[in-house]
Amino acid sequence: MSQTYDYQQILNTIEESLRPYCNRGDIADYIPELAKIDSDQFAMSLCFNDGREYSVGDFRTPFSIQSISKVFVLTIAMQLVGEELWGRVDREPSGNAFNSLVQLETEMGIPRNPFINAGALISTDVIIQETNNAYDEILDLVRRISLNQNIKFNEKVANSEYSEGDRNAALAYFMKSFGNINSTVDELLRVYFAHCSIEMNTLDLARSFLFLANGGIVPYTGDVIIPAGSAKRINSIMMTCGLYNNVGDFAYSVGLPAKSGVGGGIAAVLPGEFSLAVWSPGLNENGNSLRGIKGMEIFTSLTNQSIF
Amino acid sequence: MSQTYDYQQILNTIEESLRPYCNRGDIADYIPELAKIDSDQFAMSLCFNDGREYSVGDFRTPFSIQSISKVFVLTIAMQLVGEELWGRVDREPSGNAFNSLVQLETEMGIPRNPFINAGALISTDVIIQETNNAYDEILDLVRRISLNQNIKFNEKVANSEYSEGDRNAALAYFMKSFGNINSTVDELLRVYFAHCSIEMNTLDLARSFLFLANGGIVPYTGDVIIPAGSAKRINSIMMTCGLYNNVGDFAYSVGLPAKSGVGGGIAAVLPGEFSLAVWSPGLNENGNSLRGIKGMEIFTSLTNQSIF
Amino acid sequence: MSQTYDYQQILNTIEESLRPYCNRGDIADYIPELAKIDSDQFAMSLCFNDGREYSVGDFRTPFSIQSISKVFVLTIAMQLVGEELWGRVDREPSGNAFNSLVQLETEMGIPRNPFINAGALISTDVIIQETNNAYDEILDLVRRISLNQNIKFNEKVANSEYSEGDRNAALAYFMKSFGNINSTVDELLRVYFAHCSIEMNTLDLARSFLFLANGGIVPYTGDVIIPAGSAKRINSIMMTCGLYNNVGDFAYSVGLPAKSGVGGGIAAVLPGEFSLAVWSPGLNENGNSLRGIKGMEIFTSLTNQSIF
Amino acid sequence: MSQTYDYQQILNTIEESLRPYCNRGDIADYIPELAKIDSDQFAMSLCFNDGREYSVGDFRTPFSIQSISKVFVLTIAMQLVGEELWGRVDREPSGNAFNSLVQLETEMGIPRNPFINAGALISTDVIIQETNNAYDEILDLVRRISLNQNIKFNEKVANSEYSEGDRNAALAYFMKSFGNINSTVDELLRVYFAHCSIEMNTLDLARSFLFLANGGIVPYTGDVIIPAGSAKRINSIMMTCGLYNNVGDFAYSVGLPAKSGVGGGIAAVLPGEFSLAVWSPGLNENGNSLRGIKGMEIFTSLTNQSIF
Repeated sequence: MSQTYDYQQILNTIEESLRPYCNRGDIADYIPELAKIDSDQFAMSLCFNDGREYSVGDFRTPFSIQSISKVFVLTIAMQLVGEELWGRVDREPSGNAFNSLVQLETEMGIPRNPFINAGALISTDVIIQETNNAYDEILDLVRRISLNQNIKFNEKVANSEYSEGDRNAALAYFMKSFGNINSTVDELLRVYFAHCSIEMNTLDLARSFLFLANGGIVPYTGDVIIPAGSAKRINSIMMTCGLYNNVGDFAYSVGLPAKSGVGGGIAAVLPGEFSLAVWSPGLNENGNSLRGIKGMEIFTSLTNQSIF
Repeated sequence: MSQTYDYQQILNTIEESLRPYCNRGDIADYIPELAKIDSDQFAMSLCFNDGREYSVGDFRTPFSIQSISKVFVLTIAMQLVGEELWGRVDREPSGNAFNSLVQLETEMGIPRNPFINAGALISTDVIIQETNNAYDEILDLVRRISLNQNIKFNEKVANSEYSEGDRNAALAYFMKSFGNINSTVDELLRVYFAHCSIEMNTLDLARSFLFLANGGIVPYTGDVIIPAGSAKRINSIMMTCGLYNNVGDFAYSVGLPAKSGVGGGIAAVLPGEFSLAVWSPGLNENGNSLRGIKGMEIFTSLTNQSIF
Repeated sequence: MSQTYDYQQILNTIEESLRPYCNRGDIADYIPELAKIDSDQFAMSLCFNDGREYSVGDFRTPFSIQSISKVFVLTIAMQLVGEELWGRVDREPSGNAFNSLVQLETEMGIPRNPFINAGALISTDVIIQETNNAYDEILDLVRRISLNQNIKFNEKVANSEYSEGDRNAALAYFMKSFGNINSTVDELLRVYFAHCSIEMNTLDLARSFLFLANGGIVPYTGDVIIPAGSAKRINSIMMTCGLYNNVGDFAYSVGLPAKSGVGGGIAAVLPGEFSLAVWSPGLNENGNSLRGIKGMEIFTSLTNQSIF
Repeated sequence: MSQTYDYQQILNTIEESLRPYCNRGDIADYIPELAKIDSDQFAMSLCFNDGREYSVGDFRTPFSIQSISKVFVLTIAMQLVGEELWGRVDREPSGNAFNSLVQLETEMGIPRNPFINAGALISTDVIIQETNNAYDEILDLVRRISLNQNIKFNEKVANSEYSEGDRNAALAYFMKSFGNINSTVDELLRVYFAHCSIEMNTLDLARSFLFLANGGIVPYTGDVIIPAGSAKRINSIMMTCGLYNNVGDFAYSVGLPAKSGVGGGIAAVLPGEFSLAVWSPGLNENGNSLRGIKGMEIFTSLTNQSIF
């Protein structure tokens, strides 16, 4: 219904109108590799199920996807164990910080959803337990859906995060004490920080989310990633749990299922239509890309394309 | 895109397929007026922005809308004070029970969203403070959007709830101690339980939600209720906070912004398309209508019309 | 063992050494009647089981005993219902603020101990339910143990507190919603704020605590107030719960079972030996009398008389 | 004042009167080494500052002291860093379970007191950081105060606990993420489980607590362990935090500062007078020795010697 827009023009307009916000926001600085990123950068890519692609800005520059990888490991975990997964992780908003341990204590080691750290550790544990090589499994999936065989982990970032990973170790040991982690915590954290360290540009990222806008199938290749019901499931969890404590405001201001990462990326989909990826390193007080959210807001305002 | 379905046939199919669930679920029994409802009843009504209407089952039988009224008082509060409202109530999922006091303590008397009890008390307080007669204001709005001048409060139900209302009194006094309630608690609870006691049938209810599917305007009359942005806001809050601790599963299984009530009603919208209301008194363990959720699931499955 | 000290000299020394702290601490200012107190004042009284009495400073000036009254209503509640009381209130430290609602939610309306507000409301509720006139019952007990027939409520203070009592109303309604309050909340709060408003001087106060140092019997008159076991029980609760979040430090620095009030009073006992009351309106950050705690510290240091 | 009792007779009476409770209570069974203990056993030892010693039952049988070792590591930590310790651990009752992580999250990794697991990990961390060999340091102290050079760790128990120690690892990593642990978590847990595995009989244990009843000095040898003020501090923390969620009831029913362990031991002191150790493996629902608490109750009842 909305195919009449000049999308390239819209992306250009967005980039232009966000210039004044260049130096706003804080760069994630808990590890040196993220702290040294040039905060001026901005990129946005839009991919339609029908093959049209549009990009603007630094869309050829790879960045650290961080928590966006939680969508990929959830996808693989659902491939591997299907509905069984929901015995180990719930699907409701947490109402707490992404790295909180509090609810785990009263809820017997069952994380609220797969997009808080504890929940992504469960997905990661499933992959370690159910496959021969978790690293390969994750890279394979990401390469398949991004159509880019060069995607890889950034070992320096992963090692740096591992060395600062005490809180995630606490989460992992806590869940293990309830019997909800089967791998050793060391291996679990290694794989977890590896997938957080994956680097993609916005075009890679938009392409890699397109299967979620297309009923679980990569539209360019016909590659079936997950059943349509599983894609719908992931979209609904992104809608209610994808942006931590910004989920309510993002649902209003953007109105698309999405997942953000502390590297400054956000990936979203409009089911049946398109995927949209944005990147800008400056973060708001909730750890979401400041210009990224604004850019998506402008996009859904100009095109009137949200789910609400 | 979906106008080719025979919707009357679909509603009939849904009613038929839910027959086996007739005696399932628990009736709300905390007040006698609700406890004595015949649990066999089922009704569903569907209204399109373009004027088509379909109903099935006991759609002429009025029932107690209870928490669905939170949508109506939020609508009025937004009419009255606009964005100011968000200084007194947040818009994020709570992760806790609908009547929890815990977060209020750490969050200084600011409720997480307008659809938990504490949040609806804020909307109610706004109406009392900003109008001459809160009761009339609420009835007027509901009659306008339902196109039914006979909608009224059930005083017996309201009085019964008031006499059992200690927990809501605790919520109100607690927020008042933080300076976030301006009315007397007695008047606040009287108005609150009055709007909870409103009785509507599913056709009234579906009609009354149609302005949310139509950018804030009642399509049949052109009556402008709220700006399009406010309608979008309410839809996004329903999506992330409308079904308490079922919000994640409902987003997946139904995929429509919706609000439920303990009287067994659920009202939902597909923005740009239609509103859908269902009623069946038997509740699941989260206090949502058991056959109501199932009915909506079947509807969005058969018609493939959800936001995901 | 300690009878060789010159106690009058010790009290004089304490008063002298606290002069430099005269203007320290904050006066409770949540109601005007407390806010206008002259913060220079200081008094201390010491009564032995054997009849010796010593006082220093403004020991003839009555002040608002506030939370110290929780000891008196607990005493009466134990007289009235004995061990039954412990079905409605626990005897463990709360680890939370004196007016917190959080634990009540997870612990089904059962307060942690009788010295947080919620617990004292339970004692008050018992007195209302089990006697003909709760006000008289409370005054009678306090007059009996203080040997002062002129003790009375300060109605102006009580009314002022009542008008600011939203948080206590929240506590009361919350417990009522769990079935743990039988009186109307209005009557309950009226009686509660009445006993908080009782005015005594330090000599009255020290005398009124002496039965707790003497196995439940007022030593001067032989009046049996409660069984020895009940006196021991109250002392042990004062030790573990008497000074809110200062309980650990007070146990160390003073080492006596005690109860404090926001009016600046503290009353303590050394079982088998004496009672000690102190008053000075300036409060520390935990709401306990700053010079009061220091005075008691000096006393137990100089006399080497604590329970540890 | 109490020297006229026949203490041997009293201990005999206690043992006799507890016979009917032989099979009551549950043995700690989270590791095989503790699970296989014969639950019939009972022992009690009493040591006076003046050198008198009395024992009854299986007082020559060593048992696992478990959490009682928290008193020993706290003693060493206070020797090493003095008041500085209180910047890393608080001294207030927690109101939560001994292994809870919840308060650590809101209180920035500072444990409530040294007798919950998190607090004892802080003491242990201090010893590792401040000494050349934490194991030797701990054994040396325990041998000095128990006057028994044969006290040692039970490596099998320590290894078994280590292999089940995920929850304690979570606590350690969580505090480390707040910067409140300096050792590696692996070394920390090794030392922690080592001191928990120390085996003593009740006579060893009573002797080893006597310095706390004697102003920090072992009375038999004159060996100065800690200043009198530090001994008083430890006693006051035992009083308010020594028996987890039984602290209030134990303060009433026994009325002595004490520390319990899941191996069935309890050690207590009456400052200025004596130390008392009891052992019986059957535990109540709070993890404290069932016959141990009863035995101490009978002792303070018969001798009228408590602090209240």
